[in-house]
Amino acid sequence: MSKRQILLLSSSNVHGYSYLEYAAKDIKDFLNKNKVTDVVFIPYALKDYDGYLKKVKNVFTTWGFNMTGIHESKSPSDTVKSAQSVFVGGGNTFLLLKTLYDNKLIELIRERVILEGMPYMGTSAGTNVATKSIHTTNDMPIVYPPSFIALNLVPFNINPHYLDTDPNSKHKGETREERILQYLEEDGADTVLGLREGGTLLVDGNQIILKGLTKARLFVKGTSPQEIDVETDLSYLLKK
Amino acid sequence: MSKRQILLLSSSNVHGYSYLEYAAKDIKDFLNKNKVTDVVFIPYALKDYDGYLKKVKNVFTTWGFNMTGIHESKSPSDTVKSAQSVFVGGGNTFLLLKTLYDNKLIELIRERVILEGMPYMGTSAGTNVATKSIHTTNDMPIVYPPSFIALNLVPFNINPHYLDTDPNSKHKGETREERILQYLEEDGADTVLGLREGGTLLVDGNQIILKGLTKARLFVKGTSPQEIDVETDLSYLLKK
Repeated sequence: MSKRQILLLSSSNVHGYSYLEYAAKDIKDFLNKNKVTDVVFIPYALKDYDGYLKKVKNVFTTWGFNMTGIHESKSPSDTVKSAQSVFVGGGNTFLLLKTLYDNKLIELIRERVILEGMPYMGTSAGTNVATKSIHTTNDMPIVYPPSFIALNLVPFNINPHYLDTDPNSKHKGETREERILQYLEEDGADTVLGLREGGTLLVDGNQIILKGLTKARLFVKGTSPQEIDVETDLSYLLKK
Repeated sequence: MSKRQILLLSSSNVHGYSYLEYAAKDIKDFLNKNKVTDVVFIPYALKDYDGYLKKVKNVFTTWGFNMTGIHESKSPSDTVKSAQSVFVGGGNTFLLLKTLYDNKLIELIRERVILEGMPYMGTSAGTNVATKSIHTTNDMPIVYPPSFIALNLVPFNINPHYLDTDPNSKHKGETREERILQYLEEDGADTVLGLREGGTLLVDGNQIILKGLTKARLFVKGTSPQEIDVETDLSYLLKK
């Protein structure tokens, strides 16, 4: 039985909701179930760490949780070693992954989540880096990380902010679905879960359930894309 | 006086036009001015080289030019060494750049364009790799290239398929402008030209002119973004 406790949000902002509001119940349930009172925030996906912490801390404090920023301590690795849980915010996935590598946190976070059951929450870029690799991010490659391999807390890829094709668009760039299908042509690529804004993935040990407000779209190499309803059990994806 | 002869298209497909049609006059003028009869097509941004060549060759043949694919010869480097001109097609920028590195073509193409004046045409991904680096591509990072540094035929970045923010969108992912401004916060980033679909950049020696159907949007670190009219002289960007 894996100790893995993970909550992955497609996005922090969803139309019609305030910041993180759409997932408030899922986040609170997740933290309470795991008896977490203190959360370490990892703001590496943006540049203004203090400003970002302030914004997120405000929400978590309202919900009754304590929050500190990983950048507030001298040793990010010591902070992760002693953290009750981490929340990894969105922004630029390349910047986030590079900074995690620069601070030698990849193996450490992975060990704490997989072997010790430290609860991990991520949103957008923080969801991308929780997966096998960042090959299916939507972000601009503004910095060059030493690898696209990520935390591998789940053995497949996620595309956050998944966007359906607009049949009325006059724009001729590739659609999101076309981009994901191009990725699936590559060696080593197998499964991509397109999480629409408002979609959330809950991983509890060996079980995965789609939570949130909207269906997801699942792409598996060699098969047609399929729509996944909220509350669907996706545990079989852990055996990939 | 630089020998550089370059034509960079934002995209091959533009709403209301057939494949490459919007830029037909600019491409034909460019090739005729440089006395080019034979074009080598580089299809590395997609997987189906033969299918891609067939599609592009059909257009160039109609215009009266001969076209061969770089993949049709045993030695891509020998083909580039003897090419009259190259056309680099769109697709995935990461796949294109990695394949150029894998085939040891980066330095070779650069030398042939900068030192020998071999005319270079690119579209979309083929435009991205012509610039300083691929840090401002819109594409999904489906493969990991050994560097994001590209051909550096022009000393700035281009964002092809530049897309204005849709004020009615309910999607909360970053806008294109936000992504480019995030890049400009990085060390080494300085200038990004947002080429809207239908936009083309003509580089003739030390002169750059915006061609095509639409204005471009220019982002320079530390200044406000500005709109650039068609036929504007942008030669000062070569001195960056």
